[in-house]
Parts: sequence; structure tokens; C-alpha cells
Amino acid sequence: MITVLAGGVGAARYLTGLVRVVPPGEVTAIVNTADDVTLHGLRVCPDLDTVAYTLAGLVNPEAGWGLAGESWTVMGALERFAGVAPPGSQAATTWFRLGDRDLATHLYRAGRLAEGADLATVTAEIARALGVGVRLLPMTGDPVETRVGVAGEGEVGFQDYFVRRRHAVPVTGVRFAGVESARPAAGVLEAVAGAGVVVIAPSNPIVSIGPILGVPGVRDALRARRRSVVAVSPIVAGAALKGPADRMLAELGHEPSVVGVARLYAEVAGTLVVDTADAGRAGEVEAAGVACVVAPTVMHGPDEAAALARATLAAVRR
Amino acid sequence: MITVLAGGVGAARYLTGLVRVVPPGEVTAIVNTADDVTLHGLRVCPDLDTVAYTLAGLVNPEAGWGLAGESWTVMGALERFAGVAPPGSQAATTWFRLGDRDLATHLYRAGRLAEGADLATVTAEIARALGVGVRLLPMTGDPVETRVGVAGEGEVGFQDYFVRRRHAVPVTGVRFAGVESARPAAGVLEAVAGAGVVVIAPSNPIVSIGPILGVPGVRDALRARRRSVVAVSPIVAGAALKGPADRMLAELGHEPSVVGVARLYAEVAGTLVVDTADAGRAGEVEAAGVACVVAPTVMHGPDEAAALARATLAAVRR
Repeated sequence: MITVLAGGVGAARYLTGLVRVVPPGEVTAIVNTADDVTLHGLRVCPDLDTVAYTLAGLVNPEAGWGLAGESWTVMGALERFAGVAPPGSQAATTWFRLGDRDLATHLYRAGRLAEGADLATVTAEIARALGVGVRLLPMTGDPVETRVGVAGEGEVGFQDYFVRRRHAVPVTGVRFAGVESARPAAGVLEAVAGAGVVVIAPSNPIVSIGPILGVPGVRDALRARRRSVVAVSPIVAGAALKGPADRMLAELGHEPSVVGVARLYAEVAGTLVVDTADAGRAGEVEAAGVACVVAPTVMHGPDEAAALARATLAAVRR
Repeated sequence: MITVLAGGVGAARYLTGLVRVVPPGEVTAIVNTADDVTLHGLRVCPDLDTVAYTLAGLVNPEAGWGLAGESWTVMGALERFAGVAPPGSQAATTWFRLGDRDLATHLYRAGRLAEGADLATVTAEIARALGVGVRLLPMTGDPVETRVGVAGEGEVGFQDYFVRRRHAVPVTGVRFAGVESARPAAGVLEAVAGAGVVVIAPSNPIVSIGPILGVPGVRDALRARRRSVVAVSPIVAGAALKGPADRMLAELGHEPSVVGVARLYAEVAGTLVVDTADAGRAGEVEAAGVACVVAPTVMHGPDEAAALARATLAAVRR
């Protein structure tokens, strides 16, 4: 059994490779929910949905999130209300664009949550409906909210930073409101403790993996089995392949490099897989107390993702 | 100023005629909300939306509700979840079909309600966004739920009876859960007390007008000015023009005729407008204590609706 700590796009791509290497039924993904957002009364879970849509083969390949062949009728009609929403209202928000087919997922989730189902149960139902063989677990069913400090503006919600401001603003701080009292979803701690290998996917260490590590019990469970935990660096040659991880690391006082990633994960992961472009920094990674494995980590397609998954597993099984 | 007590389709058609006779800004519609339903976390207000869409000229003319030229992408995608929803769940419900553009209205409403806005405020915003000049008021912002007793099955929700079972089952009882403690929405009692004429639209007397009369204060306000309250019979020659009003009246022990309608409204309305087909029953209507005015009440189009509006106002202003 293999357990993967996952954010969104990068983790989803890694998982498509992993399920070419091991049977999907042997894989559990524990997915970040701290960047979830409630819009229009609907709980939207971007990372869970990105992972599910990607594994189902339904994802929009250009964007890496959302559904392929999506239409935007509802968002178009919602624009009609922008002129009547009072200042500060998010009810006519269309900067967070929910496609028509994607909305069906959110309607189903909202309906089930309103009926009293917990997020882990609903997530499993959605995965089954989409034909996803990997077990998807939210890190928690409790509300955890990533708050991002933005220079000169104070704190904003994660999607406000990430989508609305296109992560093009300096970050002064990040916190995960509610994480201290969040209970890990049913199965999370068991999946960390009981897996043969735990992989920390190539996701943003701060805002994607950080919240998962913050859920009470997760960090300890990883620490207890650190030797068989392997992380994949989302930073290659000092840059994030996607998203703002490199700038965010630097702005929060970390080195935006595989060495900075190694230092962040040293407590919980025994091994870091770095890209061949970073082979020259293996010594510094090891000096941070983390075994360093060099392999191609840039996933242009499923073959490369599968090769990376193989290298990741081999790194721990040595 | 004219105030209209309104259900859905019949009232909406009546109002399109009324605004050809008097300026829309002089009309207030107090609309039934007891057949509202919460689906997928979204508050759906069928009567309010039917009235708004009709007055905006956006309604689907064949159905009498919903939007013209509507698409159904979201509902199609929601069907994917029917197989995974547990027994009894309504989360994958598609029998209550929400069109894509219609959904934007529900998303906006849900977002505003979640922000703490009251239903009357949100209703006014939606009306403004759609360009509706009539003032639309929900009868209450508090939860009131029409529960329908169905022979052999016990009580079901109104939409379950009306849409899912296509009102093709005998009714053993009707009640409006919560109505005793519902507060009239801001402006409702003033609109009843202060109007020159109050019209009870040709809507179902039991399930459309009944809940409005049940909101504390409304019945007394009407009784106090009964002489200038005029009702339009939704029953013509013993039959409802649309919907189950005739059967429902009979099943609940009322006469399914203009006479039965007169008896139901005698306490609150001084005049009943009946169709020419029912001219022969005018004496019986008057015997129930209600002045009877005979006029064509079947509205095939806006011209006939305007003529009916004129006849209604004239009936009170005599």
C-alpha cells in the first residue's frame, strides 16, 4: 500500500504516473482541503476535484484543473447579478469560475453535506461516480482555511490570493485557520502509519503540504516512520514548475531550492527526490539530513509521471 | 398602489396584464414561499422566480416557468452521481430540474443568504437585475414548508407532490409547517393595508394563497379592508386551468367551483371575479357573501391578461 500526500495539479499528475506502476486500489491520496472555498452556498474543494478529475481522465489538460470540454453557461448568467450585489458581496463572484459540469460535482457535494454526510464519505462517493480507483481522503472534514498575508493589504483567503490576484502579489505570511482543532478524516492516520511507502507529492510545500502536516497527528505519524517517507521536490533549478511555490518560499524566508525543500521536510521525510537539474546540490540536501535521489521529475506526460513514480518507490525500497 | 397576492404561473400571467394597465412601479406582489425547496444547498423559490422571470419577459412560454432557451448541462452532469447517492439522498436529484441559467439565480440567492442578507432584500436585488419594475416581496423570509398528505404514503414535501409525483395522487391534507411563527417580510403588512386595491391572483387557493393568508397579520390586514379586496377565481367551470386546484379542493372537502372559491375567500375578499362560463353561478357566489363580477378570466396572452386586470380593478372601484 502506498499513501500520497497531495495538493492539486502536481500531485494529480504524479498520481496518474503512480497508478501505471501499482494497482490504483493500493494507493491512498490524502488531499489538502485548506484551500477549499464556499461560494454561492457550495463547498468547493479544488485540490480534491483536481485529483479526482485527473485520475478519471476528465481533466482539462491545458489548465490542469477543471473539466475538459467544459461550458460556462451558469457563470455567464451569474454576471447579470454583478450590478446589484452590494459592495463586498461575493454572491455574484465570477472570478472563481465554476464550469457547468464541474458545478454538478459541487451541487452533489453540497447536497450530501447538507444531509449530514461527512466530507470523506462524499469524497468517496464522488470518486466512485467518476470511476477513480485510488482511495481519495480529505485531510480533514473540519473547516481549515488557508489565510494569506498580502503586502499592504492584510490577510485574504487563499483563492483570493491564488485566483483573483493570480498569486502576483508578495506574501507576508501564511496560516491555516482552524487546523489546530481539525480532526484527521477517518482513515488518514491509518493510511500514513500503515502504508509501505508514503510519498509527499511535488506540491507546494507551504500551502498544499503544509496544511496536511498541520492536521493533529499527521506530522507525528510521519515522523514515526520517516525512513519510508519520500518527498518529490516541486522546485527544479530554483523555480516552481507551476504556481508560486518558489516566490512564496523566498518571501517566507526559505531558500527557493531543493535544499530549502529538504530543510522543510527533513523532520518527516527520509528521502527527497530532486530533478537531474539539481544533481549538483545533492550534497547540500544530504547535509540537511535527507537522503537525496536524483531522477527526472518534470512530468510532460503519463510516461514521465510513471517513471518518476518508479524512481520514487525505488528510492525508499533501496 | 395595487397589491397582488401571488402564487406562480397564474399570478405571473395576471401581473403581466396588470402592468399594461397601471405603471409597474405602482404594483407590489406578495409571493408565496411555502413551496420553496432547498436542493443541493441552494434555496429555490419557484413562485418568486416564476413571477420575476415572467415579468422580465424571460420565462419559457410553453412551460410557464423556467427560462426560455434554457440549457440543462448541469442537470445532465448531476445524473452521473445518481448511482452513488445512498438510498433516501436527494443530492443527485434531477426530477426537480434546474436549468443552467436558472441556476445562476439560485447561486446568487444562496450566496447572499449565506452572507446574512434576508430573502426580501435578495428578492429585490434579483428583480432589479432582471429589470422587473414590480415590487416583489416574499410573504416571509422565515422558513415555511407546505407538507402534503398523500393517500397511503403519509406526508411529503410540496415539490415532491407537485413535480416528482406530477400531482397525480390523491391529497389527504395540507399544512404549512412553520407558518404560525413566520414573520411577514418587511413591507408585507404595509402593502396589504396601504394599497388602493388588493388582488388575490388566480392561483391555487389552498397551496398558493393559503400560506400567504396564514402568515400572522396578513389575514387580519385583509379582513380590515375586505371591501377593496378582489379575488380572481382560478377555477373555471369546475376545473383548474393549470395544476391540481380542482382535485385538491374536492379532496379537501371544498366544492371545486367558483362557489367553493367564494366560500374560501369570503372572510378576506369582498368581490370575486368569475369567468363568463360561470355566470350562472353568480347568485350562489353572492349567497356566500361575496360580490360577484363576471368577466373573461382565461388568459391566452397579454391582451387578455390586461383586460382581466382592468375588469378586476373596475370591480372594486365601482
